[in-house]
Amino acid sequence: MSFLYDEAVDGVLATHDKGVLVAELQTLLPDMELLHAKEDLRPFECDGLAAYRATPMMVALPARIDQVQTLLRFASAREVPVVARGAGTGLSGGAMPLEKGILLVMSRFNRILEVDAEARIARVQPGVRNLAISQAAAPHNLYYAPDPSSQIACSIGGNVAENAGGVHCLKYGLTVHNILKVEILTIDGEQLTLGSEALDSPGFDLLALFTGSEGMLGIIVEVTVKLLTKPQSAKVLLASFDDVEKAGNAVAEIVGAGVIPGGLEMMDNLAIRAAEDFINAGYPMDAEAILLCELDGAESDVIEDCERVDAVLRAAGATDIRLAKDEAERLRFWAGRKNAFPAVGRVSPDYYCMDGTIPRRQLAHVLKRIAELSAEYGLRVANVFHAGDGNMHPLILFDANRPGELERAEVIGARILETCVEVGGSITGEHGVGREKINQMCTQFSSDELTFFHSLKAAFDPQGLLNPGKNIPTLHRCAEFGSMHVHHGALPFPDVERF
Amino acid sequence: MSFLYDEAVDGVLATHDKGVLVAELQTLLPDMELLHAKEDLRPFECDGLAAYRATPMMVALPARIDQVQTLLRFASAREVPVVARGAGTGLSGGAMPLEKGILLVMSRFNRILEVDAEARIARVQPGVRNLAISQAAAPHNLYYAPDPSSQIACSIGGNVAENAGGVHCLKYGLTVHNILKVEILTIDGEQLTLGSEALDSPGFDLLALFTGSEGMLGIIVEVTVKLLTKPQSAKVLLASFDDVEKAGNAVAEIVGAGVIPGGLEMMDNLAIRAAEDFINAGYPMDAEAILLCELDGAESDVIEDCERVDAVLRAAGATDIRLAKDEAERLRFWAGRKNAFPAVGRVSPDYYCMDGTIPRRQLAHVLKRIAELSAEYGLRVANVFHAGDGNMHPLILFDANRPGELERAEVIGARILETCVEVGGSITGEHGVGREKINQMCTQFSSDELTFFHSLKAAFDPQGLLNPGKNIPTLHRCAEFGSMHVHHGALPFPDVERF
Repeated sequence: MSFLYDEAVDGVLATHDKGVLVAELQTLLPDMELLHAKEDLRPFECDGLAAYRATPMMVALPARIDQVQTLLRFASAREVPVVARGAGTGLSGGAMPLEKGILLVMSRFNRILEVDAEARIARVQPGVRNLAISQAAAPHNLYYAPDPSSQIACSIGGNVAENAGGVHCLKYGLTVHNILKVEILTIDGEQLTLGSEALDSPGFDLLALFTGSEGMLGIIVEVTVKLLTKPQSAKVLLASFDDVEKAGNAVAEIVGAGVIPGGLEMMDNLAIRAAEDFINAGYPMDAEAILLCELDGAESDVIEDCERVDAVLRAAGATDIRLAKDEAERLRFWAGRKNAFPAVGRVSPDYYCMDGTIPRRQLAHVLKRIAELSAEYGLRVANVFHAGDGNMHPLILFDANRPGELERAEVIGARILETCVEVGGSITGEHGVGREKINQMCTQFSSDELTFFHSLKAAFDPQGLLNPGKNIPTLHRCAEFGSMHVHHGALPFPDVERF
Repeated sequence: MSFLYDEAVDGVLATHDKGVLVAELQTLLPDMELLHAKEDLRPFECDGLAAYRATPMMVALPARIDQVQTLLRFASAREVPVVARGAGTGLSGGAMPLEKGILLVMSRFNRILEVDAEARIARVQPGVRNLAISQAAAPHNLYYAPDPSSQIACSIGGNVAENAGGVHCLKYGLTVHNILKVEILTIDGEQLTLGSEALDSPGFDLLALFTGSEGMLGIIVEVTVKLLTKPQSAKVLLASFDDVEKAGNAVAEIVGAGVIPGGLEMMDNLAIRAAEDFINAGYPMDAEAILLCELDGAESDVIEDCERVDAVLRAAGATDIRLAKDEAERLRFWAGRKNAFPAVGRVSPDYYCMDGTIPRRQLAHVLKRIAELSAEYGLRVANVFHAGDGNMHPLILFDANRPGELERAEVIGARILETCVEVGGSITGEHGVGREKINQMCTQFSSDELTFFHSLKAAFDPQGLLNPGKNIPTLHRCAEFGSMHVHHGALPFPDVERF
């Protein structure tokens, strides 16, 4: 297991004696759990993007804010990098540790501090699981809207750090639209309140700036989220198409018709067959594409919307449209979609999951381009994604044991992201940049724009100790790797060794 | 007319020879209109907050992006401050000029560049009026949701700079929730794209950071807004209360019941009587407070919501509830509310309009506190506001010709804002900080937080040339004025001379 992150490129040059640092921290914080033996560190080598790994120098598991403050002040004084980690479910390597850094695991901050049904807010610690918030709010008929697929395991601190989305974010927004306030600690251990319970805050919008900043600006110690009333009714339409592009165009037309579905998902034939074999969701195996469209709200409203969407789907060329006849069928339709990734995992030894976002009207064009790339490089690509948001998740199928397949998969991936940027989209929808897409940031942004990001980072963390090497590439890194990889189709990640 | 802004405190120390600068700019930009004669400058002395005035050194009226770029590069090279101005309707003095600065008026950027009904977006120049966007979108049954009271006159560039709200922002969000992308110029004349047409952007959320930054970070040259489908139906309930606190509590209960009204406004007896005398809206003159609750959406949904809100209002103690029987009555109910400010202007020689925001559940408490302050200082206060958002607009009535009344009005205003901060709210909901509330920012934020704001500002504008002296106070200013004014009840604005 070698260290994969090129610290020299990103300026983490400090050399520390691990034994001395551990002893100092243990003296400073005798009641905080600190892991440093090699076997104890292994579970923390990676997050959900298991292809990127490193052994952290040590793992701190504080349970109180004052412990985090002391730890951060220590790290700042000794110039030791700090990587924050929540539940470790992230898919872009945002919580990948540094060999020369402290991994700060926030999972013990797992208390729901307050559910205020009247104000429709919940105040929670960062280690609280996403789904646990909705469970705590359920007795009041309320819930927390953003629902990443990992919601049973992922924690709200990580959701804020990555600005997580989910199936319902077309209608209900991303994490940034569903939180009111966060309490953070800066690298100096200073506590700041970003946002407020009120509608708007004066000054610059630090809450939005912080959301999605991937652990580079501060450590989250408390989150106040908005709660929504559960929709009275939810129905799902399953539409079949004999052509992927027609399905892509139907998506833009549904939204163009003024209906905002609770969820609007698309799967192509490869994904449909994999999911159907695995789950028996009742999908049409011969369809080139299906759309799953969930309409939620007041009963009468949902019925009306179903009729409107049905008409739009027919006009867009759907060959068959089925309304889930009962709750059991509705859940079965969704089960196929929610298990599509593991289902694809059953038909290919390996796959590479992308997360590009494009303007909705470009869906048909980009799907066609993906099919061309698939043919050109001789690897299958399954498409399963949040179509309503234009948030694509192409799964590039390959076999790592066959020479050259991994490399071809990576080229296709880089080309897809490049296409997303070309049509006015971006290289990530909801998984974040993390370690995975740091080189693609060189394609997405100009050096002037990256310089801006660095200036903002420096305002919070002048020493550059918080999660260095993630999210925002150094100009040095872009000069060395960025343009070369993406533009010329060379390997996007030559500095990465897979396990 | 003396210069009201204490430039020394905020570090604008440069002295320039006006004649030399004008000649240089005229040579650089011969085809850009540049006003510099005293009589030509007069119309630009203030924005909608007419109490704060200064004569700008010169007024530039460019019509093309390259002209703005050249102007900004010139200002940067010569270290001349630049204040941007849209339609000049702002209520916090954000566009108040500097005697030693250039006023950059963007009103000639008034073209709607694109309305894309399928993507539901419009791309417009910053000088386009808010209402003009909805008018251009109307043939597609679409509209732009944020609707400040000044929407017939105010322009979208200013809306972005101030993160403007309006009657409907409880349901449809502030400006930041309704824009996708802005093109800006930095003080160096460099063009940056913030945001994208896609769902989310990687890197830090510069679009949100920029929105509401009051001209301190860059100059807006293009805005891409989201368009929404017009609601099928809209109905208004008018509820009367014999007690202001009961009305305040009813607001929290409506939203707590899971209904999100399109608009939820409150007026107290003083405002009711003034509006009724002026407009004959059909308001109950003897009610201590009224709530106007608009429900919009699909026809059937609106009927259901009306029934639910009616029940909540009765339970909350409403003495009378009327549903506007037709569109004419609905518009009459709103006309009273929309003309409440000028109506109050008819019953008092002067009034001072505040713009604090509080958590909804604190409404009753803060209204009680305002009544106490009104009694304590012997000045009437009319309350007319966006109750659903907790965005209060207390109007403090006074007569500037009676010795001491202005001063007492200012003390009440400062105390009200202080109360807003105490209960977890903020000193502005939608009018911005601008010049008006710069000292109150010292109450709202700690010096650590203000230092952060300055670091962010420096990342965009290291010379501090863009709109200095607004929005974010220097620590020097806070030390001199801030805490002294608000905490000890002294005058909030001793450095301001009114006309």
